[in-house]
Amino acid sequence: MPDYRPTIAIIGAGAIGGYYGGRLAQHGYDVHFLVRSDYDAIRKNGLIVQSIDGDFSISADRVHVYRHPADMPNVDFAIITTKSTSNHDLPKLLRPIMKPDTVLLTLQNGLGGEDDLAATFGPDRILGGMAFVCINRIGPGVVHHMDHGIIRLGPFRESAREAAKQVVAMFTACKIRCDELSDLKYGRWLKLVWNIPFNGLGTVMDLTTDRLLANDAGRTAVADLMAEVIAAAKADGVHLPPDTAQQQIDRTPSMGAYKSSMQIDRHEGRPLEIEYIIERPLQIARKAGLASPNWEQLLKLLKILQA
Amino acid sequence: MPDYRPTIAIIGAGAIGGYYGGRLAQHGYDVHFLVRSDYDAIRKNGLIVQSIDGDFSISADRVHVYRHPADMPNVDFAIITTKSTSNHDLPKLLRPIMKPDTVLLTLQNGLGGEDDLAATFGPDRILGGMAFVCINRIGPGVVHHMDHGIIRLGPFRESAREAAKQVVAMFTACKIRCDELSDLKYGRWLKLVWNIPFNGLGTVMDLTTDRLLANDAGRTAVADLMAEVIAAAKADGVHLPPDTAQQQIDRTPSMGAYKSSMQIDRHEGRPLEIEYIIERPLQIARKAGLASPNWEQLLKLLKILQA
Repeated sequence: MPDYRPTIAIIGAGAIGGYYGGRLAQHGYDVHFLVRSDYDAIRKNGLIVQSIDGDFSISADRVHVYRHPADMPNVDFAIITTKSTSNHDLPKLLRPIMKPDTVLLTLQNGLGGEDDLAATFGPDRILGGMAFVCINRIGPGVVHHMDHGIIRLGPFRESAREAAKQVVAMFTACKIRCDELSDLKYGRWLKLVWNIPFNGLGTVMDLTTDRLLANDAGRTAVADLMAEVIAAAKADGVHLPPDTAQQQIDRTPSMGAYKSSMQIDRHEGRPLEIEYIIERPLQIARKAGLASPNWEQLLKLLKILQA
Repeated sequence: MPDYRPTIAIIGAGAIGGYYGGRLAQHGYDVHFLVRSDYDAIRKNGLIVQSIDGDFSISADRVHVYRHPADMPNVDFAIITTKSTSNHDLPKLLRPIMKPDTVLLTLQNGLGGEDDLAATFGPDRILGGMAFVCINRIGPGVVHHMDHGIIRLGPFRESAREAAKQVVAMFTACKIRCDELSDLKYGRWLKLVWNIPFNGLGTVMDLTTDRLLANDAGRTAVADLMAEVIAAAKADGVHLPPDTAQQQIDRTPSMGAYKSSMQIDRHEGRPLEIEYIIERPLQIARKAGLASPNWEQLLKLLKILQA
């Protein structure tokens, strides 16, 4: 058991927050869940996790669940798993639970989440990560973990490197596979190379990943977008290998008829994470003077789907 | 009753062909229907039309229905109502029924159908028209005419002006509202100003017309496409009024949550009329040296939906 025994807050216990927070609680950590719609169910039945790595639950008498951050204790460490579409609410959710040295880890999609947190709380306590996991909330307070589960995380600035190492060790001790990223920005851009075409086009056209790659027109559209994202990454100081696009395309068919999270949000009528997955990285391309015609057009069309 | 009493072929008796051909037969014209999937049903039960302008049927013992053009008589006049996606088959469907002076009227969507026919059969016998009608095939040999019904037609070249007048008079005598177009090309481009954004974007994004106009992003995307189409029309010698785009946008909300024919084809898994509605007119813009970035992108995305 590592020495790092922080008090932990999970901000937004949907599928991702419920699963990882649940694992931490299962292993004896002091975890406090801030939730919205599932509050009553978790209060009554506890948090229930069905997982390929073993089912477990945190019983109602042991789970710490809250509707308002003002009711929560101050914590040493907070994991942010809300949708980025409500990031404007984050400062007022986080302020009541912060200590001077509270470490924040955002597991949101896209680019810019760490920058927002750094602007409000300072850069030296901010970690960012990506959860590679197939997981669904299948009912109030019930999470189904179907596949994968690795978290890759790193510090926003090198000043938080030690905090990142402690968090990686903690996750690992809780049987959560976790890699430390030497370069968080590199990891974020690498994921964007896949997310921008497959979340973006998949949502605009309402097509699963297999349909986007079913003919030359689709493969070309995906590759054209990836090339624009790779150019933007380079302008942002991230040099991805020359075969990045091809590798990302080649690994996609194994996912079958995969619906991206944004495509599912479209189906469910939820707000779309357009700003952080599509628009913030595009702003970096624009600032660098890059023309990104396919990406610009994609953003235009996505905005038609916004309420 | 006008003097023009042609023998008539309907090539492709789906909803449009069944309805207009049925009206002509109802009024005593000698009409021969070339059909595919509905052959057995029409042979057995006749052609049945439910119409806001009065139900009628052509009984099985009176309807002339064929599966193969070789079995049909030579005709004076043929109406083409097949989907443009099978236009490569048209010459071999038409050749067996042609006389030296047979007049051909295509009621297909988009641009280029008359050019194709003229290339094969000469330009002086070609008419083009547009059917503004809400109509569905609701079963084999059963057509439901829900609203509207006007045909606007004109000659491809002035040499066929007299033939156009005769056809207009014939339709009018059969209680089909029909306008003679002084400029067919003008009519086709005017319709394209609406069809390219609403068929094109509506199909790519799987959105009904009301959803495409529900926010500023959608209205801008529609207007940007319309501006590109209007510029192409101008390059093709068709000068549309300055308020054309605004007029077309303003008249759309009254259609409600309207699904374009191409969006329905996408849902039904049928081939999409991309070539004639989107690509042929775009080729005119390209030849004129116009940049049409939104239109080009639309075509790229539509091609992802092609089998």
